[in-house]
Amino acid sequence: MSSPSSLDELIEALRCLPGVGPKSAQRMAYHLLQRNPRGAERLGQAIDHALKTLRRCARCNTFTEDEVCDRCASPRRDPTQLCIVEMPVDLNTMEQTHAYGGLYYVLMGRLSPLDGIGPKELGFERLLARATDGVVKEVILATNFTNEGEATAHYLSEVLHARGLKVSRIARGLPVGGELEYSDAATVAQAFIERRDY
Amino acid sequence: MSSPSSLDELIEALRCLPGVGPKSAQRMAYHLLQRNPRGAERLGQAIDHALKTLRRCARCNTFTEDEVCDRCASPRRDPTQLCIVEMPVDLNTMEQTHAYGGLYYVLMGRLSPLDGIGPKELGFERLLARATDGVVKEVILATNFTNEGEATAHYLSEVLHARGLKVSRIARGLPVGGELEYSDAATVAQAFIERRDY
Repeated sequence: MSSPSSLDELIEALRCLPGVGPKSAQRMAYHLLQRNPRGAERLGQAIDHALKTLRRCARCNTFTEDEVCDRCASPRRDPTQLCIVEMPVDLNTMEQTHAYGGLYYVLMGRLSPLDGIGPKELGFERLLARATDGVVKEVILATNFTNEGEATAHYLSEVLHARGLKVSRIARGLPVGGELEYSDAATVAQAFIERRDY
Repeated sequence: MSSPSSLDELIEALRCLPGVGPKSAQRMAYHLLQRNPRGAERLGQAIDHALKTLRRCARCNTFTEDEVCDRCASPRRDPTQLCIVEMPVDLNTMEQTHAYGGLYYVLMGRLSPLDGIGPKELGFERLLARATDGVVKEVILATNFTNEGEATAHYLSEVLHARGLKVSRIARGLPVGGELEYSDAATVAQAFIERRDY
C-alpha cells in the first residue's frame, strides 16, 4: 500500500542537501520526476562527474580539477599576500571586488567546538605550512564577522603571529551607502572604534 | 581563473530543484562535495534509479514501479468512490486520515491558465475515462482551497456532472481545535455558510 521504494529512496536521498527537510524533499522529488526529468538526469550526471573529477587544490585547498588550481598557478597574482577565507563562496565574493591581487587559502569551514570542528578538523597544519613557505609576508584574515568566524580569526592570528608573520583582518564598519539611522548599534560602535584619520 | 567546470555544472544542475536559486545551489554543491560526498553519491544513484523504474499508474496516475499501483490493485478498497487530488503528497495526507477507503486519481497538478496548464495538459480525458468506467458512483474533489485548486474543482464538477456522476467537495471550515479568534474572516464566513444541522 505504501509508496514505491525507488521514490522513497529518492526523497530520502534529497534530504542530504542542506536545509532540506522531509516536506521539501518530497516536493523536490515530485518536481524532478514530473516536471523536469531532463533536469533530474543532468543533476544525477553532474553529481557523478563532480565527485569523480573534483579534488582540493594542493596550495589553496579549494575545489579544482587539477593538482593546483588556476589561481594558485597564475604568475600574475602576488604570492606575498595570503587571504584566508572560510568557504569558496567567500573567495568568489572577494574576487568580485577586484581589490585583491594576492593568493588565497580556503579553510572549508570555521572553528566550531560545539560541532566538534577544531584546528585539527580544519587542517590548520596545512595552512601553517602554506603560510610559512618563506614567500608569504602578510596574511589577511577574511573569515566572517560571526562569532565562529571571529573566534577562527582570533585563533589564527595568534598562531600566525607566533610564526613571525604579519597578520591583518578585514575591516568592520558601515556598508558603502550605509546610513547610521538604519545600522545596528554594534556596527556603528565598531565603526566608531575603528575610525581612521581623515 | 574561474571555478572548475564540473563544479559550475553541478551548481547549475542543482538549480533545477524547486525553490533553489544561485546562492542555495552554490551552498548545496559545496555541502555535497565537502561534507557529504557519500550522500551525494547516494543522491546521484537514487535519481538515476527513480528515472529508470518509476512510471504512472495506469489507473490513478500516481508514480509506481508497476503497471497498476498496489492501492488500485487492492481488493480491499471501495471502487465506487474516486477521490481526486492534485499531487501524490495530497494522496498521502488523505490516507493518513484513515477516513477514506475508496480509490484515487492524482491530477499531477492543477488548472493554471497563466502557466499554460489547461485540461489537456492535465490529461483530463484519462480522468474522465477513469471516472466513467461504470463502477465509480461518487467523485470526491479534494483539490486544495487555493484559487487554482478551486477553479480546478469547479471545472471538474461541471464535466463530471455532465456525465451523470455524483460529485462532492471536501468541506471548508475551522480546523479541528481551531478557535474563531485566531481564524481568518473568510474561513469563519465559510464555516458559517457551510454550517450543518446539529
